[in-house]
Amino acid sequence: MAQEYDLVILGGGTGGYVAAIRASQLGLKTALVEKGNLGGTCLHKGCIPSKALLRSAEVFATAKNSDEFGISTGEVSVNFAKVQERKGKIVDQLHKGVQHLMKQGKIDVYDGFGRILGPSIFSPTAGTISVEMNNGDENEMLVPKNVIVATGSRPRTLPGLEVGGNVMTSDEALSMEEIPKSIIIVGGGVIGIEWASMLADFGAEVTVLEFADRIIPTEDKDVSKEMQRLLKKRGVNIVTKAKVLPETLKQDGGVTVSAEVKGETKEFTAEKLLVSVGRQANTEGIGLENTDIQVEKGSIVVNEHYQTKESHIYAIGDVIGGLQLAHVASHEGIHAVEHIADQNPEPMDYDLISKCIYSSPEAASVGITEDQAKEQGYKVKVGKFMFRAIGKALVFGESDGFVKIIADEETNDILGVHMIGPHVTDMISEAGLAKVLDATPWEVAHTIHPHPTLSEAIGEAALAVDGKAIHG
Amino acid sequence: MAQEYDLVILGGGTGGYVAAIRASQLGLKTALVEKGNLGGTCLHKGCIPSKALLRSAEVFATAKNSDEFGISTGEVSVNFAKVQERKGKIVDQLHKGVQHLMKQGKIDVYDGFGRILGPSIFSPTAGTISVEMNNGDENEMLVPKNVIVATGSRPRTLPGLEVGGNVMTSDEALSMEEIPKSIIIVGGGVIGIEWASMLADFGAEVTVLEFADRIIPTEDKDVSKEMQRLLKKRGVNIVTKAKVLPETLKQDGGVTVSAEVKGETKEFTAEKLLVSVGRQANTEGIGLENTDIQVEKGSIVVNEHYQTKESHIYAIGDVIGGLQLAHVASHEGIHAVEHIADQNPEPMDYDLISKCIYSSPEAASVGITEDQAKEQGYKVKVGKFMFRAIGKALVFGESDGFVKIIADEETNDILGVHMIGPHVTDMISEAGLAKVLDATPWEVAHTIHPHPTLSEAIGEAALAVDGKAIHG
Repeated sequence: MAQEYDLVILGGGTGGYVAAIRASQLGLKTALVEKGNLGGTCLHKGCIPSKALLRSAEVFATAKNSDEFGISTGEVSVNFAKVQERKGKIVDQLHKGVQHLMKQGKIDVYDGFGRILGPSIFSPTAGTISVEMNNGDENEMLVPKNVIVATGSRPRTLPGLEVGGNVMTSDEALSMEEIPKSIIIVGGGVIGIEWASMLADFGAEVTVLEFADRIIPTEDKDVSKEMQRLLKKRGVNIVTKAKVLPETLKQDGGVTVSAEVKGETKEFTAEKLLVSVGRQANTEGIGLENTDIQVEKGSIVVNEHYQTKESHIYAIGDVIGGLQLAHVASHEGIHAVEHIADQNPEPMDYDLISKCIYSSPEAASVGITEDQAKEQGYKVKVGKFMFRAIGKALVFGESDGFVKIIADEETNDILGVHMIGPHVTDMISEAGLAKVLDATPWEVAHTIHPHPTLSEAIGEAALAVDGKAIHG
Repeated sequence: MAQEYDLVILGGGTGGYVAAIRASQLGLKTALVEKGNLGGTCLHKGCIPSKALLRSAEVFATAKNSDEFGISTGEVSVNFAKVQERKGKIVDQLHKGVQHLMKQGKIDVYDGFGRILGPSIFSPTAGTISVEMNNGDENEMLVPKNVIVATGSRPRTLPGLEVGGNVMTSDEALSMEEIPKSIIIVGGGVIGIEWASMLADFGAEVTVLEFADRIIPTEDKDVSKEMQRLLKKRGVNIVTKAKVLPETLKQDGGVTVSAEVKGETKEFTAEKLLVSVGRQANTEGIGLENTDIQVEKGSIVVNEHYQTKESHIYAIGDVIGGLQLAHVASHEGIHAVEHIADQNPEPMDYDLISKCIYSSPEAASVGITEDQAKEQGYKVKVGKFMFRAIGKALVFGESDGFVKIIADEETNDILGVHMIGPHVTDMISEAGLAKVLDATPWEVAHTIHPHPTLSEAIGEAALAVDGKAIHG
């Protein structure tokens, strides 16, 4: 029997399930098809489990350094099975939460793999969804007015550096049973750096091999530099301009691989190797070939409202490429749903998206970098304020890092805000709001940041844009 | 010899020294007179040292609970001498920082006690400052065009409950050499609650006696309630509607005092007693009697530009009463200086001031409470979002508390934002900026809060104002 829906969503990750909730709020009869677990990569193989491990690493580091705060602990050690158990419990709790939200929103969830059919007896246009049910039941046929493809992505590997033996992606790393004594991390982007920081805190010997001339190369250069300095201080071996040679991979109990570093070939050996070289959209097997949907460079092509070439089929989140972040996916999902419901949403401005790195130190940013601003022809003025001049940072015991604000000298617009240091992932949203409301540095500075807080660094950096920092 | 200045500031606390820096930026020849230490109460007897102790208490609690995160420790104990030593080091470092800023700004600092003289051979108007030097040298005479009085405040006591023996104010408590086994805290305002939280974390048996019907009575009622619930859960004995009877005080090794609680007289006994019933302006001995400056209810009377009845003599900070907060003092100081320098500053809007409580949990707020909004005749709509539905709060291990946004149903203006929970003191500035820019809840919700962060609770609360929370 075919079920009719206003909207069927393929994929119950953050993009998909949030879209489903918004659709439910707007009165659309909605179904969600998910072959794995509701919550998707973010909840089960990404943001949440990795942050849970990072938090345990942070607690470990705090306990080990507690003497500095006048606290004695005896010997501090990691019970990694328990760390993993805690991670699992948090994921379970949030997973139950998402299931509850689906029930509350009266969203039909189909546990199975959905595939888009072409024009058929069910519908003259492509878009009927055939669900191969996980429980082995006969395929369900869903006939929707609209479809959202939110099938997400999976970790990319390098040819010759596939998963197996001691070679992992973040998927496998998340369920490691022991902390490796040593690890090579191929790729010094956001995920690689979070793993480097966490494993270094847990006591592993970490080597990061990064192809570019700096780690986290999409961030502002000053942030990369400070991150590199602070990770090196904690013993992480960071090798930039390193071209890994997958063909040299040897697995013999451990892992050995060579890389070309500034013209020289160097060999690296460790117990494990983590490949973190980006993510690949899940476009396979979902029936795109039955539609006019275009795929370019591995990602589904959409317009500013996330419509594919089939205007009633939308695609959002990691499967369309771009900024592959959970909050981007969910807001693309909300946008698509509001477009379907004729709410005339404004196209999203990706310049307003905040990005976070949950390493120690944390980093966060919104808007463009200083280099990008200059490339785009802006005459920039920069305000920078160091956390070491912030009382609360000294109190907290983490006073490295800074807040950097890049403004347009002509219009006084804030072009970008870049932060590295304590709790910056929780503070970036002030900068996000400033961008959304087109605030000037003066307005941010005019906001009285309470004392003593870490957020004073934002106020001071805003003053510094015009050379008026008080404590600078 | 008399020295001439554009501006002389009496008092080198946060209000005074920040005013001096701003004056220096604006090219005013400036002197600062301080009898104690630059940085004043905030740096030496208030914000900074108390937060340093609170941070050690937090590390202690984290280490003790680290098993929950999969981290094993031996026995965890406090070395309170070391806790105090760390506090001292942080204060010293920041003190040196302020001294450096004074040098950098070419601000003349006089180590002594300043007194305002009436009309004299030096000047036909009141305002010459005679400085009794700490080093015993002859008094210095400073002849300024303008004066800022920033002499601050000191802890208030109750008659019969003066400092001595085991009775302390926060001044004495900050230099305790040992953690008391038990303590009675008279006054459940911000300072009392910070001490209650800290000492409870350090293992003391804490009783809070509060006169009002709830602790932190200036905060939103929901925040008081949640704070009370969470402190009680941690073993703090909170007694509200308690009228302490100072005449019953007995000191005999420990402290015994009675209080009238809902008609009954109850006796309380502990090792120490902390009086935290507010602060008293320092108006004595500074020569106000030589001027036309008015003092009402113990505070100096000023206009919206902080001018006293002598228009060239300003007063700022705790000495004028009102919100006695460091960031209020410093911004009043900046305002006064800009007024002196004819920069036409806009009068400060005290409705835009954020307030923080650094207990565990933290609390922070800006704007008016729900009750105040109703009293003021607003038709309010309220959005509330609990941290327990925020992934990052679960990850962090602290998922109590909430964000509450109060908006005007008619204009959609945000009237107040009230937060209790993890890191809220670092997140309140987003709400502060929203108030400064007159943002609507929709604009706050439209700001994409990155996932997974604690700040998502702000975005969700903003959505909840119109019943559109995603995870609610």
